[in-house]
Amino acid sequence: MGIALHIKKLAGYVPGEQPRSKNVVKLNTNENPYPPSPKCTAVLSSFDLDDLRRYPDPNFTTLAKAIADENGTTSDRVFVGNGSDEILALAARVFVEDDESIGSLDPSYTLYKTLAAIRDVKWVGVGRAADDVRRASAALAECRKSNISLFLWTNPNAPTGELTEPKTIAAFAKKFKGVVIVDEAYADFARSNCMSLATAPRNRNVIVMRTFSKSYSLAGLRVGYCVGPKDLIDALYKAKPSYNVDAVAQAVALAAFKDGAYHRKTVAKVVKTRTAFEKVLAKRGWDVIKSESNFVFAKPPAGTAAKDVFSYLKGRDIYVRYFPGPLTGDRLRITIGTDRQMKTLLEALDDRFRR
Amino acid sequence: MGIALHIKKLAGYVPGEQPRSKNVVKLNTNENPYPPSPKCTAVLSSFDLDDLRRYPDPNFTTLAKAIADENGTTSDRVFVGNGSDEILALAARVFVEDDESIGSLDPSYTLYKTLAAIRDVKWVGVGRAADDVRRASAALAECRKSNISLFLWTNPNAPTGELTEPKTIAAFAKKFKGVVIVDEAYADFARSNCMSLATAPRNRNVIVMRTFSKSYSLAGLRVGYCVGPKDLIDALYKAKPSYNVDAVAQAVALAAFKDGAYHRKTVAKVVKTRTAFEKVLAKRGWDVIKSESNFVFAKPPAGTAAKDVFSYLKGRDIYVRYFPGPLTGDRLRITIGTDRQMKTLLEALDDRFRR
Repeated sequence: MGIALHIKKLAGYVPGEQPRSKNVVKLNTNENPYPPSPKCTAVLSSFDLDDLRRYPDPNFTTLAKAIADENGTTSDRVFVGNGSDEILALAARVFVEDDESIGSLDPSYTLYKTLAAIRDVKWVGVGRAADDVRRASAALAECRKSNISLFLWTNPNAPTGELTEPKTIAAFAKKFKGVVIVDEAYADFARSNCMSLATAPRNRNVIVMRTFSKSYSLAGLRVGYCVGPKDLIDALYKAKPSYNVDAVAQAVALAAFKDGAYHRKTVAKVVKTRTAFEKVLAKRGWDVIKSESNFVFAKPPAGTAAKDVFSYLKGRDIYVRYFPGPLTGDRLRITIGTDRQMKTLLEALDDRFRR
Repeated sequence: MGIALHIKKLAGYVPGEQPRSKNVVKLNTNENPYPPSPKCTAVLSSFDLDDLRRYPDPNFTTLAKAIADENGTTSDRVFVGNGSDEILALAARVFVEDDESIGSLDPSYTLYKTLAAIRDVKWVGVGRAADDVRRASAALAECRKSNISLFLWTNPNAPTGELTEPKTIAAFAKKFKGVVIVDEAYADFARSNCMSLATAPRNRNVIVMRTFSKSYSLAGLRVGYCVGPKDLIDALYKAKPSYNVDAVAQAVALAAFKDGAYHRKTVAKVVKTRTAFEKVLAKRGWDVIKSESNFVFAKPPAGTAAKDVFSYLKGRDIYVRYFPGPLTGDRLRITIGTDRQMKTLLEALDDRFRR
């Protein structure tokens, strides 16, 4: 009685810091440096008060239809959540029995481990291998061994920024008995993605998840969505709170989604800055993993500890992300901001670390 | 593997219909007929795009502080959810072990039963008794018998509209080993409430939950909150998605919350309409349970079936709520709208049912 034992033992997920000051150069939680489409402002400023007063559409009909149309599928294969995080939490309840486990790449989005702990099931991570095909084989073996029923495959992965080829994930899914969620939070910044696996008529177990938080610059609103087989989407519907996506979020996300030209332009700017930043960082002796996302995961030159760079930058009001631990503690994850923000970061690095 | 068995078996909660047409007289989901405070419009139309682009405050600091201040308590005893529904779903995971049960009044909010099914635990309802003190005793006996660790006490209750005296709930909580959530969605329309139980320094197990959906006219936004002992609030924080309440919802709810004068005025109007409507309905031979909420639960005169009245009204674009079943099927739950909406409803009733 009282607090459930597994919750008592839980440390809780620690999200990246969200300093409220606007003077901070904030490159720590992979937000988009550019504002959302101007169409979003128009929706907000003319929002019908009657749509605040009344419950929102519980089935986010218009938004789901737009997402379905864009991806050449039908609305009954689309689910929308209060951020991708809500979809993940629902999936952990819907696709996992008490004696089953949740798997993911390792390192990956650290929330997955917390989710498994909240669900009170085992989490299993699959480390890097010589190549992704071998890693997929290792994942499959692990799924069998640890009774994994839900595998969360982040692609491009975070915090590494690497992309696994869709055909590798397809081959994995074909042999896997459980459900794979390909978490494509960063896919708009990548050269390929798995959406066609999710919309394929014969798809049995692949759900592709996207978010409005990154490429659409709407992290403040909490809208994520996923596409997959109808029976799996139905199961998410059954377990969701009745009105999980609010009316403003539905309307603003729709406006952003329909403004494809603005979206493509913003994404192209981020990718261009990323490419330039990767080069310039490499030139300074950093080891940079080739990124397919809106951040880079890079290791400072020998003799400089990632943690020290992190603390130093924070002291200068430049926030990047540092993940302690053996798999990640030698690198920093740096979100791609504007050209000007990256310049500020580089200048700060040069002030202290350039020899 | 695939969909968990208890989800497969689940019918899913069916929320009240949300017709999108604005011509409907919508008295079926207890929305407020009056718009939210004009301060909300101001917030929306001047919303800082930077706050859309960036993640919201994960701890809803300003809103929680305002709620704490208003209730003479501290922020660490306040939790905010994506609607009360999210708080209920979190509570079902946080305060209930696999072998424990969830209890509530019966009839009550039908979602509770679905929540227990999603959580894969037993739900137990406690029916009406000769009086509320006896009902509380029966509830306590049931809690022991069925290993109930979370009791959801809706007050005023829905769909009946009745209020249980706070002292009765206090006495129940004192003897109960688990957690009581007093779901006060409608408390602003009632003559008393349990907030002082939640804020009492020695309170061990009472959480009082409120919503912005009813008295604040913000159902479209999904903001609910609760107040309780710090350790229980901490446990909800641990299990929540990182950014569960979006930036717009936080800001608009805060504006509504701070406009106390507008809130009181709106609530007073609803209560006045309710009182008049109860009389007029009674005069037409309906059996009306004295309501302490923004709806009435009433039984048509002998010879007229509630279900038929429901269907007839729907045919005239007037939506009220009908809950089938032995405990509720002889009545209709009618939300209090504007005086004009109630007049339209009464005229429609007279057209068909007046003798």
